[in-house]
Amino acid sequence: MAVYTQVSAEALGAFLRGFDVGELVSAKGIAEGVENSNYLVETSWSRFILTLYEKRVAASDLPFFMALLDHLAARGNRVPPAIPDREGRIIHELEGRPACLIEFLPGLSVSHPTPVQARAAAAAMGQMHASLVDFTLERPNALGVDDWRPFFDRCGRAIDSIQPGLYDHVDRAVDKLLAAWPRHLPRAAIHADLFPDNVLMLGDQVSGLIDFYFACTDIRAYDLAVMHGAWAFDATGAHYDAAVGSALVEGYAGNFPLLDEERAALPVLAEGAALRFFLTRAWDWLNTPADAMVTRKDPLAYLHRLDFYAEHGATLFA
Amino acid sequence: MAVYTQVSAEALGAFLRGFDVGELVSAKGIAEGVENSNYLVETSWSRFILTLYEKRVAASDLPFFMALLDHLAARGNRVPPAIPDREGRIIHELEGRPACLIEFLPGLSVSHPTPVQARAAAAAMGQMHASLVDFTLERPNALGVDDWRPFFDRCGRAIDSIQPGLYDHVDRAVDKLLAAWPRHLPRAAIHADLFPDNVLMLGDQVSGLIDFYFACTDIRAYDLAVMHGAWAFDATGAHYDAAVGSALVEGYAGNFPLLDEERAALPVLAEGAALRFFLTRAWDWLNTPADAMVTRKDPLAYLHRLDFYAEHGATLFA
Repeated sequence: MAVYTQVSAEALGAFLRGFDVGELVSAKGIAEGVENSNYLVETSWSRFILTLYEKRVAASDLPFFMALLDHLAARGNRVPPAIPDREGRIIHELEGRPACLIEFLPGLSVSHPTPVQARAAAAAMGQMHASLVDFTLERPNALGVDDWRPFFDRCGRAIDSIQPGLYDHVDRAVDKLLAAWPRHLPRAAIHADLFPDNVLMLGDQVSGLIDFYFACTDIRAYDLAVMHGAWAFDATGAHYDAAVGSALVEGYAGNFPLLDEERAALPVLAEGAALRFFLTRAWDWLNTPADAMVTRKDPLAYLHRLDFYAEHGATLFA
Repeated sequence: MAVYTQVSAEALGAFLRGFDVGELVSAKGIAEGVENSNYLVETSWSRFILTLYEKRVAASDLPFFMALLDHLAARGNRVPPAIPDREGRIIHELEGRPACLIEFLPGLSVSHPTPVQARAAAAAMGQMHASLVDFTLERPNALGVDDWRPFFDRCGRAIDSIQPGLYDHVDRAVDKLLAAWPRHLPRAAIHADLFPDNVLMLGDQVSGLIDFYFACTDIRAYDLAVMHGAWAFDATGAHYDAAVGSALVEGYAGNFPLLDEERAALPVLAEGAALRFFLTRAWDWLNTPADAMVTRKDPLAYLHRLDFYAEHGATLFA
């Protein structure tokens, strides 16, 4: 959420001369996205996002992400593909980092989605899944079901410092989810992080899906489960919005068929998604100094979701 | 250099409906400027910078800053004035902070200014000073000559932790400058922080002077002295670029008369400017945890300038 690598005006001007995009007019470092450095770049022709990939995105994963965006954009999805330079290359190096020049999309991320907005966003996910049925590249989910146990063990008993008794509680949840995980469900390329932050909207219309840097190959319906947990609760995780929750499932299913077995598995998939975000938030919470200039996101917000889905999941998605 | 206050899409949309600026299309938090929260906002009509003022800018100073920008813009200087809302107000409140919607200016800050660029930027300062001769509002310089001794005493002996012997060295410099300070020189409203960061350029042309939040009433030629120290050295302060230094004085004097007594005082004014930035950098250095996610700027870069001006100032500006 900061600019980690500074790009001088001189270096940026030289970089852009490799592209057929007009003359550099403005560039502002923007505070957005996962741990990358992003600039909003304006040329005499158009606007772009320049992303320099920091440690959290592996350079070796960029071809997967860029092929995915290109595939989706070619099929009419509103996603920001990378711009090729004059020689057709899309992955570059700038200031010692892998870098891509990416199409700018208008729109804003809503903080409190309405059911109408949730339906539109889930419909965009359905359209995305439909477009990806013939996408053949694969990338393992680095935060998938098989990573939860080792990840939890790395957090260890320190988890109890967040809330007493938390370790044993989550320990049982990990065991339960590993046993119940519906590994037989259809797999596909998924976004895996479609929070409201990552959906640009103009009013009630979706103008862009962004930040595909957790995209991977996993159970397709898990994508909807992640989205459900991200959209249908308030920030504390304590309050579920049933109208938003229903709108998500209906919006998705209107654009892509949700199999009976997928729908039946949504409670456990949603529990898994809640656990996945609980684990990374807990890790960040335990490993970020309280006085650091980054906002620590409360892991308990995802514990509340986990417990909510465990208790109400069966009726929720019926 | 971060976004401290989050503005939701919903709150921003409501805020903009108070202005005659078109529909909200995009907003990106930008990592720029002093310790404010800034958004690059696009509407169906134009682009703007939305600034929310954090602790470092006092709300009571905003009328001075905004009147200054308005005065300068009305006289053809390329500065970003605040946009009035439908009722003519320019200072608002948003998310609990004072906030202004400000004109967006194109251009980029150069990292390694050439003499041609330095001349253009100093000429813009000269034009600005010419436009301010009839600007009558006053604001004391919170980091002016009378603040250096108390500020230095607050840093105290801890200064020696930056470099052994530094306290005594700077202590003598403070004494020398307080005795030598040319208090009789003409005073006016000045920018007081016209670093390359705060000058937007398109090629060799100045497209904007920005970030007036240190603007104040002080010795007019001190403004040029601040600029000289900021532009004519490399980042370490160890290397002086004589061509840039000369271009600054010539560019300025081409647009605003530099009196003989002002020119004669430039060495001591430049020493004072170097001390002023040394002091704030030393303070930040001593009070910022080494592992904080902000870049600490090396105070020694301004010690080098201070020493350089003390040794070479007399011949430098002759």
